[in-house]
Amino acid sequence: MQIAVLGTGVVGRTLAPRFAELGHTVTIGTRDPAATAAKEDYAAWQADHPEVGLATFAAASELAALVVNATNGDATLEVLAQAGDLGGKIVLDISNGLDFSGGFPPRITFPQDDSMAEQVQRAHPAALVVKSLNTMTADVMAHPDRLPDPGTVFMSGDDPAAKEVVAGLLAELGHTDIVDLGDVTTARGTEWLMPAWLRVMGAVGSPYFNWKVVR
Amino acid sequence: MQIAVLGTGVVGRTLAPRFAELGHTVTIGTRDPAATAAKEDYAAWQADHPEVGLATFAAASELAALVVNATNGDATLEVLAQAGDLGGKIVLDISNGLDFSGGFPPRITFPQDDSMAEQVQRAHPAALVVKSLNTMTADVMAHPDRLPDPGTVFMSGDDPAAKEVVAGLLAELGHTDIVDLGDVTTARGTEWLMPAWLRVMGAVGSPYFNWKVVR
Repeated sequence: MQIAVLGTGVVGRTLAPRFAELGHTVTIGTRDPAATAAKEDYAAWQADHPEVGLATFAAASELAALVVNATNGDATLEVLAQAGDLGGKIVLDISNGLDFSGGFPPRITFPQDDSMAEQVQRAHPAALVVKSLNTMTADVMAHPDRLPDPGTVFMSGDDPAAKEVVAGLLAELGHTDIVDLGDVTTARGTEWLMPAWLRVMGAVGSPYFNWKVVR
Repeated sequence: MQIAVLGTGVVGRTLAPRFAELGHTVTIGTRDPAATAAKEDYAAWQADHPEVGLATFAAASELAALVVNATNGDATLEVLAQAGDLGGKIVLDISNGLDFSGGFPPRITFPQDDSMAEQVQRAHPAALVVKSLNTMTADVMAHPDRLPDPGTVFMSGDDPAAKEVVAGLLAELGHTDIVDLGDVTTARGTEWLMPAWLRVMGAVGSPYFNWKVVR
């Protein structure tokens, strides 16, 4: 599958090569590819990962069947606005809307009857938005099998076929307990896991954990 | 230990006899004991559980070292105001502040920088408030061992000694992974697990599950 990963941060740099390793064709999307490629840390990473392409948000998305939003919540809407026509494409939204301006722990940037996923869906009504993977750190997204138990990964979205594709991708990554919560509004549930996630990280002293629904 | 369980609903009726079974002296607190005892369903339940006492909120709390708030969030502050002087007592707060007036799923009744536990602590500054057990259904609180894995139970509170007592009680109930998140403000994390909990209940078709932090 042709996959665009929008965002050059930790999440993007973790998922992009993992998808490539799984046999997908992966291009990272960024605002200014020349500027990104010229950054010392990105250039070093790129040298280690020649299998991952780099292009503008729009060029990366154009040929992709699946566009991964791996940007911070505060950049999400602006970045996706630069990604061209997302109609008919699966948009895998991993973002969390967090405001760190008041210190730690950050605040959620939207009211409880909204979510990042719904904001993305409203901005791109013809896109097939699926919220997933936002409830764990990047290393766990990419390699849940490295935990003693992979835990649970959730999906929220309006399009069943898009969720089926995402579920297949999640399974390829190593996720074994994939819970479809329902339509895109159910992302309100998982996006509000973040306040607890941040406190658990503090208590267990590491981001390297996952939620599991034991039943 | 002498324990008061405030609230005659499902949570109170599940926990009270379980604590008694574990060897504690348990009194359920209610607004009007005569009226509660006269209710047909309560009378039938009481006949099955003669080991559990019934008294006013104040009388039940007076002799208790540990007062369990097993009321709904919307009744919590009013009930605890009737419980007499809670200074020096451990108040185990299980409440969730949910408003069902707009249908399902309910809304959280407080802003993200507050919690039921903090409201209780502010109203009773000398009480030793510990938030716990609010992230699971009553049967799982009382018998986590009946799940394939007991999962994780969280604690939030300002008083380390009170949390130690609560941790002991949780262990007696069968909880094996007890995570102390920190001070009472960390209840903001677990109280905001409810929106996800409600969607997971919908997806798995049962309230009989628990969160587990796999790490």
